[in-house]
Amino acid sequence: MQIIEKYQNLINRKIDEIIFPEFPKNLYEPIKYLLSIGGKRLRPVLTLLANEMFGGKVEDAINSALGLEIFHNFTLMHDDIMDKAEMRRNRQTVHKKWNENIALLSGDAMMIMANKLIAKSNPEHLPQILELFNTTSLQVCEGQQLDMNFENQLNVTEEQYIEMIKLKTSVLIACALKMGAISANANPSELQNIYNFGLNIGLCFQLQDDYLDTYGDVNVFGKKIGGDIVANKKTFMLVTALNTSDTEKYNEILQLIENKNIVEEEKISKVIKIYNYLNIREKTIGKIHFYYEAAQKIWDKINITEDNKKYLFEYIEKLQTRNF
Amino acid sequence: MQIIEKYQNLINRKIDEIIFPEFPKNLYEPIKYLLSIGGKRLRPVLTLLANEMFGGKVEDAINSALGLEIFHNFTLMHDDIMDKAEMRRNRQTVHKKWNENIALLSGDAMMIMANKLIAKSNPEHLPQILELFNTTSLQVCEGQQLDMNFENQLNVTEEQYIEMIKLKTSVLIACALKMGAISANANPSELQNIYNFGLNIGLCFQLQDDYLDTYGDVNVFGKKIGGDIVANKKTFMLVTALNTSDTEKYNEILQLIENKNIVEEEKISKVIKIYNYLNIREKTIGKIHFYYEAAQKIWDKINITEDNKKYLFEYIEKLQTRNF
Repeated sequence: MQIIEKYQNLINRKIDEIIFPEFPKNLYEPIKYLLSIGGKRLRPVLTLLANEMFGGKVEDAINSALGLEIFHNFTLMHDDIMDKAEMRRNRQTVHKKWNENIALLSGDAMMIMANKLIAKSNPEHLPQILELFNTTSLQVCEGQQLDMNFENQLNVTEEQYIEMIKLKTSVLIACALKMGAISANANPSELQNIYNFGLNIGLCFQLQDDYLDTYGDVNVFGKKIGGDIVANKKTFMLVTALNTSDTEKYNEILQLIENKNIVEEEKISKVIKIYNYLNIREKTIGKIHFYYEAAQKIWDKINITEDNKKYLFEYIEKLQTRNF
Repeated sequence: MQIIEKYQNLINRKIDEIIFPEFPKNLYEPIKYLLSIGGKRLRPVLTLLANEMFGGKVEDAINSALGLEIFHNFTLMHDDIMDKAEMRRNRQTVHKKWNENIALLSGDAMMIMANKLIAKSNPEHLPQILELFNTTSLQVCEGQQLDMNFENQLNVTEEQYIEMIKLKTSVLIACALKMGAISANANPSELQNIYNFGLNIGLCFQLQDDYLDTYGDVNVFGKKIGGDIVANKKTFMLVTALNTSDTEKYNEILQLIENKNIVEEEKISKVIKIYNYLNIREKTIGKIHFYYEAAQKIWDKINITEDNKKYLFEYIEKLQTRNF
């Protein structure tokens, strides 16, 4: 997968090359900080791969790719304030390292920087790219609002949960792919296909994140296992457990959620025991496969030679098979 | 000034007509709320007047005008969080009426809605309009950051203060005018002139706000007099007082700033007494006149018949002569 590394390096280099005004320091330093602590640059890599797949040139997609990466990091900066998160990628979050006002305003500035990069797209594609980008960003806000609403809502249906992660995560994955395809002048039906492929793959990614947080291998996952359980996060696993348990198990889960004095390790192991009893592991894997197959069906409809399709598909496959 | 009322009504009607998704309610309700409590719609009226002055059609400028109004309200929503302001236009601020997370996320959504409207500009002008809008919005963030920095900084020079209000206020006034002119296909030198005119007029507006907060007529000003003094706000008046006083007066001001137990009315009257002693009133009026004359000089260079220029100029004049 040399091409992935090549694209990741290109994106990192382009991010390093962004010239930030010196002043006001406490507006721009937090942006540099968050962008420098990395991540796998998933969204811009997807944009560049989709662009390549449809025969586009890197230079036609690179600015919108960078814009999406900066937009994604903007959402992280603001989400971390709302979630009162202290750590991000093993480093202090911006509002912890500086303060909430600075994280709020730097986030706003970051959103504008994302817009600036997106606006550098080929003028011919600009209205279409802006329509896609602005619609997507608004949906991401809607997803974050639903996610926060779920915190105070015990009964979340599977349908509501899927709608939330679709808005919070999938639409941006789908947007990244479609943006690359637009830059490469793909036709409307291909644009629709790559977008719908992205929606389904985005759901797989998020469901897999939920899964790995409980059942992942700590050495591969890179984060502490069980964080979602400790935080009572409404994941697919918890939502499904609450929706499929009998009264006895339901009350057991409720007690574990409400118990503020329980030792973390004990809570994790007790919740996993209930998950196992309710076959939550199998149900989650089944749901991931369901969306993965839906994605594959759409993928097969994309009328491009297998040779051109292979890099994007291999990358998705590699991400999707991590650590089952 | 029938035309002003006509434009204000048009903008209010267009804002009323914006269709907000029903859901999630707590993302969109705060936006509707803030937009409904009004204001004089200064920025979009300026866009429409500039567009008219250069012979443009209302429909070519209305979307960017609305976008600017929504952007301006987005900055208010986020500024109110940062400033911990409880009231805005005699109503509760969004973060007080709902909570900070909701004000943060609704503000983000509002910024995106502004972008959506701006993106509806004539595709021919779109790259230029986006460049102007994105550059301006980033400057507004810089201005807000400087304003916050000044809170913890006793010594602010006049130059630094002017730079701050230029970024926080003037560039958006200048942008509003230039955007209208772009929509009307004004030529590059006219665009430069109307922009520079806006920069100077924007400084006048802000200096006048500073002035009226202390020396205004409460019945005309519509707000309590002396609010800036009570809040130790670094206005042009306070900055100038600190920069032009001898050690004795300097220490007197300092004591008043640091005295947390002083009755508001006493603080206001004592500070005004020092202002009067230091001729701050005259110095502020002088500075307003300085920028007003600079604006007029640029205005005279704009090569348009007086007949076409008159509405915009009369509106500016009316705003500028309020309540001296």
